[in-house]
Amino acid sequence: MNSYKGIRRFECICRFECMIKQKKVAIAAAKKAGLALLKQFNNFDRGKVKLKSAHEIVTSADLSAEKIILSELRKNFPLDQIISEEAGTLKGKSDYFWIVDPLDGTTNFSIHSPFWAVSIGLAYKKELMLAVILAPFFNELYVAEKGKGAYLYKYFKFTAKGEKMKVSKINSEKMINIFCHGKKISDIKRAIRYYGQQKLNGFDCRQLGSASLELAWVAGGRAESFFIPGADLWDVAPGVLLVREAGGKVTDAAGKEWNLDSYDIIASNGKTHKEVLKVVKRL
Amino acid sequence: MNSYKGIRRFECICRFECMIKQKKVAIAAAKKAGLALLKQFNNFDRGKVKLKSAHEIVTSADLSAEKIILSELRKNFPLDQIISEEAGTLKGKSDYFWIVDPLDGTTNFSIHSPFWAVSIGLAYKKELMLAVILAPFFNELYVAEKGKGAYLYKYFKFTAKGEKMKVSKINSEKMINIFCHGKKISDIKRAIRYYGQQKLNGFDCRQLGSASLELAWVAGGRAESFFIPGADLWDVAPGVLLVREAGGKVTDAAGKEWNLDSYDIIASNGKTHKEVLKVVKRL
Repeated sequence: MNSYKGIRRFECICRFECMIKQKKVAIAAAKKAGLALLKQFNNFDRGKVKLKSAHEIVTSADLSAEKIILSELRKNFPLDQIISEEAGTLKGKSDYFWIVDPLDGTTNFSIHSPFWAVSIGLAYKKELMLAVILAPFFNELYVAEKGKGAYLYKYFKFTAKGEKMKVSKINSEKMINIFCHGKKISDIKRAIRYYGQQKLNGFDCRQLGSASLELAWVAGGRAESFFIPGADLWDVAPGVLLVREAGGKVTDAAGKEWNLDSYDIIASNGKTHKEVLKVVKRL
Repeated sequence: MNSYKGIRRFECICRFECMIKQKKVAIAAAKKAGLALLKQFNNFDRGKVKLKSAHEIVTSADLSAEKIILSELRKNFPLDQIISEEAGTLKGKSDYFWIVDPLDGTTNFSIHSPFWAVSIGLAYKKELMLAVILAPFFNELYVAEKGKGAYLYKYFKFTAKGEKMKVSKINSEKMINIFCHGKKISDIKRAIRYYGQQKLNGFDCRQLGSASLELAWVAGGRAESFFIPGADLWDVAPGVLLVREAGGKVTDAAGKEWNLDSYDIIASNGKTHKEVLKVVKRL
């Protein structure tokens, strides 16, 4: 029994020390990629984008940012698994699982909208532990650690004390609903019906076009709810931890707690969750 | 005949001199209001906003920015007519007509989205002559004069030579469609159908939430088309001149050239106009 406790304590210390390094590396990788993206942002040539699907594009900016992040992660944590939007799954033997979107909001990036971000998450045995989301144009970095809260830092001042992120206290009467959709036509149709329904119910909607920032907007109290039918893991996983650590609620479309295998996602400030869920269930 | 020509020439010189002053005053007023708004932006308290209608809010920021602009215009051009979003119509005896939106994109402003602008336009005998649109968070100022082109300036460097704005050359295959809607439920329903139709046709859409910036986005080649069923004059008039002077096309929903009395607005880079019009006509 004592020996078991000893092993557990040893594991805890290891994981604590690991987390310090993991956080440091993730932030450094996000900053390096973010800076490279920012340099390309202002003069980006939209004529050169390639269509990945009817609603998705991929650019040289996505690929170069991904290369930077994967290289940093592989160098520091060669045994960890990684999933990244463009590169797919990179296998590993450890229980740590990195979830990367090197440029979340590529269409926005291409049209000179600042709603794009570098998003890096880390799960341990399928449990979200760390989220690092960087929005270079906004000069904002959002960091969450499981059980330790979510914080907003100014990009170039990470050493300074961050501002604690908290979901809003606004109820459904004045709620702002953000939404997006997955790739399948059935998901797009659900998003169209959701938009129509919320508008006709008298509530304003926005499609900011970057899921990680949309979750950060809910976490920071700038909007009340967020819905994606058919969300990709790399788009939402880090943002989920941000919302939870900021006091919000994250479920699937049936109202069950969101996990890494969930298909849909509803994130909210808690107060508006029931109303949003009601609309989603009727789609 | 000679005397008539002399009067015409004199009128031309007067109007030219007037335009120099009008442009100077409009830019100064936009900057003053923009700077005041920027100071309130980062720490804006969403809890205090008032609902003007189901989809519209008004804030102390709108009202204080309007006060600054109207005071500058009244001081310099006491005889001109003015229409402004919150204050309504201020009568005047001259043929000059100012069209003001002190804070276009109030909801965005309230949710910390940078898509908001100060928009000032000037018409002479119902013809658009001048457009001044300032997007403080983007550090961008867009200025158009009839027959003289549209220019983008960095906010704090207006004395420097601006960058000429040009609509994009992208055709409907890769077009990005921006849209918004007026206040009436019939307009909202048309916008919902438009969004659904464009998405199901395989084209991406964005609702940036600030009509003047949405028009600037088309003028600057960052998006291809823009549609508002039931547009308010102050939301779109200055942006119309911007798009036209950048080489784009602006019509109503029937395809007729847009004028100050038009109800709907479609603005595009020209190349995509026919496709967008086809969708709008079927709504």
